[in-house]
Amino acid sequence: MSLIHRLDTSSPQFHASLHTLLAFDASQDESIERATADILKQVRAQGDAALLDYTRRFDRVQADTVAALEIDRSEWLTALDGLPAEQRASLETAAERVRSYHERQRAETWTYTEPDGTMLGQKITPLDRVGLYVPGGKAAYPSSVLMNAVPAKVAGVPEVIMVTPTPDGVRNPIVLAAAAISGVDRIWGIGGAQAVAALAYGTQTITPVDKIVGPGNAYVAAAKRRVYGTVGIDMIAGPSEILILGDGSTPADWIAMDLFSQAEHDELAQAILLSPSAAYLDEVEAAIARLLPTMPRADIIRASLAGRGALIQVKDMDEACAIANDIAPEHLEISTEHPQQWADKIRHAGAIFLGRYSSEALGDYCAGPNHVLPTSRTARFSSPLGVYDFQKRSSLIQVSQEGAQVLGRVAANLAYGEGLQAHAASAEYRLTPTDTLT
Amino acid sequence: MSLIHRLDTSSPQFHASLHTLLAFDASQDESIERATADILKQVRAQGDAALLDYTRRFDRVQADTVAALEIDRSEWLTALDGLPAEQRASLETAAERVRSYHERQRAETWTYTEPDGTMLGQKITPLDRVGLYVPGGKAAYPSSVLMNAVPAKVAGVPEVIMVTPTPDGVRNPIVLAAAAISGVDRIWGIGGAQAVAALAYGTQTITPVDKIVGPGNAYVAAAKRRVYGTVGIDMIAGPSEILILGDGSTPADWIAMDLFSQAEHDELAQAILLSPSAAYLDEVEAAIARLLPTMPRADIIRASLAGRGALIQVKDMDEACAIANDIAPEHLEISTEHPQQWADKIRHAGAIFLGRYSSEALGDYCAGPNHVLPTSRTARFSSPLGVYDFQKRSSLIQVSQEGAQVLGRVAANLAYGEGLQAHAASAEYRLTPTDTLT
Repeated sequence: MSLIHRLDTSSPQFHASLHTLLAFDASQDESIERATADILKQVRAQGDAALLDYTRRFDRVQADTVAALEIDRSEWLTALDGLPAEQRASLETAAERVRSYHERQRAETWTYTEPDGTMLGQKITPLDRVGLYVPGGKAAYPSSVLMNAVPAKVAGVPEVIMVTPTPDGVRNPIVLAAAAISGVDRIWGIGGAQAVAALAYGTQTITPVDKIVGPGNAYVAAAKRRVYGTVGIDMIAGPSEILILGDGSTPADWIAMDLFSQAEHDELAQAILLSPSAAYLDEVEAAIARLLPTMPRADIIRASLAGRGALIQVKDMDEACAIANDIAPEHLEISTEHPQQWADKIRHAGAIFLGRYSSEALGDYCAGPNHVLPTSRTARFSSPLGVYDFQKRSSLIQVSQEGAQVLGRVAANLAYGEGLQAHAASAEYRLTPTDTLT
Repeated sequence: MSLIHRLDTSSPQFHASLHTLLAFDASQDESIERATADILKQVRAQGDAALLDYTRRFDRVQADTVAALEIDRSEWLTALDGLPAEQRASLETAAERVRSYHERQRAETWTYTEPDGTMLGQKITPLDRVGLYVPGGKAAYPSSVLMNAVPAKVAGVPEVIMVTPTPDGVRNPIVLAAAAISGVDRIWGIGGAQAVAALAYGTQTITPVDKIVGPGNAYVAAAKRRVYGTVGIDMIAGPSEILILGDGSTPADWIAMDLFSQAEHDELAQAILLSPSAAYLDEVEAAIARLLPTMPRADIIRASLAGRGALIQVKDMDEACAIANDIAPEHLEISTEHPQQWADKIRHAGAIFLGRYSSEALGDYCAGPNHVLPTSRTARFSSPLGVYDFQKRSSLIQVSQEGAQVLGRVAANLAYGEGLQAHAASAEYRLTPTDTLT
């Protein structure tokens, strides 16, 4: 197996090869689906008792009450105080930058009044309660706590409830510290589909939330899909992706490392470079070969690049932009001189990184924008996680007596056309020109 | 069976009774699920051929090619010209008011530059292609065409593709006229799960879209749920609901008719009035009894009110607002004096109608705000259909060389903490203080 696929858009097989490379089997595992459905049903029916039982079985944590599974705020603060100074400062800088960016996303209520006194508008309110799932064990990422909790708090959500499994009772202090920094309100040491069920349906001890966000394993993803409708959810993420457009002006080692930084996430992650320069692609390939053995996660990177990675020669940068729009990547680095001219041509991407200093890693942690981004081509129709995911809108309609005389006739007319006579009558009642009750 | 339930919040059984009344079984029909899965699979595999076959079987429309199923623009324009003048004027007024309201929802790209030259922002782009499902037959509502197509066009979507079944070849001229008025780009005379499949996956003739919106029967809803992820979808709507808060100042007949206007949609529709005045509830009940026999859709209204309707006596208006927030209704009428004071207390509702002249029917057709609203308590976490459903965001990140010196250290620090060394190295490469390539 080669180190990484090489493709060329001038080849007649190019489109078929690209299609094969991008294909990803998102089909759901039947046994996971069945197990998840059963867990949801049990927790919904039995509440606390089922939650305690599953936590005993799956996390090997013995507790007599769900209250005993709450992780007290004093413990978060202890964890925060125990962080090395530089790590704490980095977390605080990241949180502050994420907060500052997201504050610009906050929507405000607006109204306008028409000449006849009719007022129309859109009222913005935060969600009451949000549940934040944080995986336990190795995949416990404090940056993920920041990226999910901070936008919710900026939106004004009064209660952000975090759940995180504590297998064998082990609690992750950096995750607890990140929760303290990002304004989380409560933390329960529960996880898996049972935690999703508790958040969606509530139990005797846990108040149900209105939306559940955050990454998790296949059981958590299946559970979120199933409770969608009872509560809101964020997107179910596919494998992470980076697409780099390079004109050859960024050092090849930098590009190789940017590809690695995606590939090291998991063997299904996808890292692709497009360039009009064959010599540059050769240079990057050589850098990959040279740098790969130095990486602690070399095995994952190697599998990801060999299976799903590619160096693609394009005709020119315009063609590169067209391919980028077709792929609609989660992360797009435009690692070129004058990157704005190419960014202007991009219609579909989760996040666009411009110029050689904007490596995706900076966006993952601390540039400010969110690192929860649409994967698997969904950037064609969806957006990064943001404050807008934690606010919702209500239409405001206050029709004046004068306004009702016009709108009532229009509405009645259209209602008769649709055969909805009660709608028409309800509109016509408001036509009463000499209403003595006014 | 009584005409409509009477409840009183002071009763010890109130919460249980309300809960029973609100409960709605949204479980999915297994046979519909199986049939839909099969239709999606066939259209995905066979394309045009399968689409033609299903259209023959389900709509009894014989066509040799999918191209022959397209409804030509000249036919829409003929339909528009054939409308009675008053109906056409009403449709045009409604479209214009809907457009004017939705223009205020359009988001714009923003960026900001930090003192070190780092630029951050959010780029707004419309979706490329949107599919709009419009039911055929009796439930063909031109207002629904306006409410779905106008926000997409205001968002800047270049191609809005409408699909609508034409059982036995019958085409609905008001629906075609509404499409012409609202800026739809193409119309295909196809429907059912096969039309959803064609829009989501594409066929030899039909280009796939990025999002599918619009109401449909159980097969259409099941198909939309299943293609979600491949394309975006709007919410799957439950039965429609109205909740009215009344202080007694609006004529009882008006309120009765507003309840009817919800109930006439379908037997599962829900119409509820809350008032602190028992005498007023009696008056409205008497109006219901008196007016019901005069309604063309009396049977549907009677079933809806008897099964799912209620007149509820509350302690005071504050309690009414608290119940409204708990129900999170699709439509909320605050039919009182000084309605703003109560609107200020409402956190969860799809649309809020203030004052006696603001009957829901005006909002359904022509006030301006959208009539596609969150049902079944989902207003706790979701919003009316809007321009924001047809635009998406991409984060913009252009880190300056100076900025990278700070952000690179923070990112590397956090990346090491998460065990992601390629992320750290990618950030550290940008630290090079004497980069000769700049």
